Amino acid sequence: MPEETILPDSIRAVEWQDDAVRLLDQRELPHAHEHQVLRDVASVAQAIRDMVVRGAPAIGITAAYGVVLAARARYAANPGDWRTGLDADLRLLAEARPTAVNLAWALARMRRVAQAADGDPTARLLDEAHRIHQEDIDANHRMGELGAALVAPGSAVLTHCNTGSLATGGFGTALGVIRQAWAEGRLERIYADETRPWLQGSRLTAWELLEDGIPVTLIADGAAAHLMRQARVQWVIVGADRIAANGDVANKIGTYSAAVAARHHGVRFMVVAPASTVDLAVPGGEAIPVEHRAPEEILCVQDQRIAPPGADAWNPVFDITPAGLIDFIVTEKGVVEAPDTNKIAAMMDREREASQPFPSASSTPR
Amino acid sequence: MPEETILPDSIRAVEWQDDAVRLLDQRELPHAHEHQVLRDVASVAQAIRDMVVRGAPAIGITAAYGVVLAARARYAANPGDWRTGLDADLRLLAEARPTAVNLAWALARMRRVAQAADGDPTARLLDEAHRIHQEDIDANHRMGELGAALVAPGSAVLTHCNTGSLATGGFGTALGVIRQAWAEGRLERIYADETRPWLQGSRLTAWELLEDGIPVTLIADGAAAHLMRQARVQWVIVGADRIAANGDVANKIGTYSAAVAARHHGVRFMVVAPASTVDLAVPGGEAIPVEHRAPEEILCVQDQRIAPPGADAWNPVFDITPAGLIDFIVTEKGVVEAPDTNKIAAMMDREREASQPFPSASSTPR
Repeated sequence: MPEETILPDSIRAVEWQDDAVRLLDQRELPHAHEHQVLRDVASVAQAIRDMVVRGAPAIGITAAYGVVLAARARYAANPGDWRTGLDADLRLLAEARPTAVNLAWALARMRRVAQAADGDPTARLLDEAHRIHQEDIDANHRMGELGAALVAPGSAVLTHCNTGSLATGGFGTALGVIRQAWAEGRLERIYADETRPWLQGSRLTAWELLEDGIPVTLIADGAAAHLMRQARVQWVIVGADRIAANGDVANKIGTYSAAVAARHHGVRFMVVAPASTVDLAVPGGEAIPVEHRAPEEILCVQDQRIAPPGADAWNPVFDITPAGLIDFIVTEKGVVEAPDTNKIAAMMDREREASQPFPSASSTPR
Repeated sequence: MPEETILPDSIRAVEWQDDAVRLLDQRELPHAHEHQVLRDVASVAQAIRDMVVRGAPAIGITAAYGVVLAARARYAANPGDWRTGLDADLRLLAEARPTAVNLAWALARMRRVAQAADGDPTARLLDEAHRIHQEDIDANHRMGELGAALVAPGSAVLTHCNTGSLATGGFGTALGVIRQAWAEGRLERIYADETRPWLQGSRLTAWELLEDGIPVTLIADGAAAHLMRQARVQWVIVGADRIAANGDVANKIGTYSAAVAARHHGVRFMVVAPASTVDLAVPGGEAIPVEHRAPEEILCVQDQRIAPPGADAWNPVFDITPAGLIDFIVTEKGVVEAPDTNKIAAMMDREREASQPFPSASSTPR
């Protein structure tokens, strides 16, 4: 990365502020910029379920802060036996969304700290949550470097869903690579699928890129294959909600369709996600639970009814892209080309690659 | 077809009534069932442009009735030289939508009748328009028989956009095959892509199927590949706005994506369209003009803004599916398997296949 590269990253989806979790309500974006301030674990679980916050890494970070709220309340209520109640709180958080594994991963880290804590656990848990949050931002910057280096100057890219600052601790995974590649002058154009049913592309990706001064062109999800046939993109870059041991990837519905079309057209397909997204306990994609949400998300658009009464809908919100369709998986531990079980295992065994500290544009404008 | 098969078909998109063109306003469906009554050619052209009526065959029929209005007015204004003005009216209609060829085809038929007319041409032109309309309905029933015969009992099907009574003179092309296959008990389940940006699947296909008592399950366009990977459908059945001489097909954006995914999964892909959709003057799909519409169709959903200010969109409303991805093209002249230039030419040389008269459910309920 050249010394003078500016990395625009002005948005935060989740913050710890005044002893509470502060979430930017992503259901209202881009029209309203409202925050929810949550002071108890039940509200945090509800906010995750209701998609006030979404994106696998952001969900994990939010849940980690939720554990701080939970432990603080349990300890205040019963300093002698606060751990018993905390188990129920951890389960409540774990069950808020089933597909993303970062949630379970963050809760496991928090549980270990809780188990080791002596006396009031709040401060130590808050330290751990802050650490999870900062490590995520650092990992995203490292992935940004690694992924952008794969993208030849003059490329155009298509992304799906939202994998940016809004979906993570900050900067983003796939969108972090795109931010980095844009800042390095490698990208001619950025296309984003609108990403039905929740329209994360139109509402969130377009918003956060434009907030950071990066132009974006939206397309209907069904136009992606036509875009590729016209050779308008060289890359599809997406995030992941869970990566199986063999490199199969669960991600937002529509990802698999883009992967099939990319392979058909010789467009390269990159998955960018922190190592916490890799679930070595799951051998392949068929074992990843895929969340189905209410038919109303298809039958309506932003509370406006589209379909006639009596219409039914099938609404899986994730799909599985088999490793065979993926050219690169990028984590903060490194890049895996043509992923398989052995390569994923070797990557996970690595220490995190050395990385420079990353000044963000908001802290170091030049 | 068994004697007792009931063919539900209760909707009409376009009718000639009280000396005017009566269109069901498809922009308001399924929430409001309003009609526009048009008494001059400029209003008809505007209605086609604004998508009050859409669907390649329905556009052709509407334009044919528009020529009746045009000629009547020209003849009333100047009985001695009504043909001169009519040319401008024909151009106005021809330019209302660029991709569908049925429009040009219907106008060519009407022009021939106008050229041969002696005295007031109105009655003869109205006869011809009615003939175009009735032939379309008859062709749809014939295609329904031919296409349904390809579908093994117990199948499930995915369709895209709206190709039903609303898109044609009545009964439908791809949706006619689905109606017929459903009536014959061949279909376990019908899935419909919601079809962004205009949501023809959610608004129109779901509505007209449910009006006729046929259940339908909507999916996000991006979920089609995932649906196929789970082996939930054996067929994709779609219409066409133009078919090139080599069998390449222009159809609603998203069709090509479904075709790529179908081939990847061994799902069979059927295109159903009247012979008037075949444009032998166009050798291949790359020569078909693809209409681009306003970015607002992507940036908004039904007049509700989705994307942030400053967001751009790329909005081709059709795409090209190459013949190599198509298993069957069905017209009223017959079925072409694995289409190519020779097979399409041979099919077009055939007379229309013999066909029984088709009572509709609304006229002959049993």
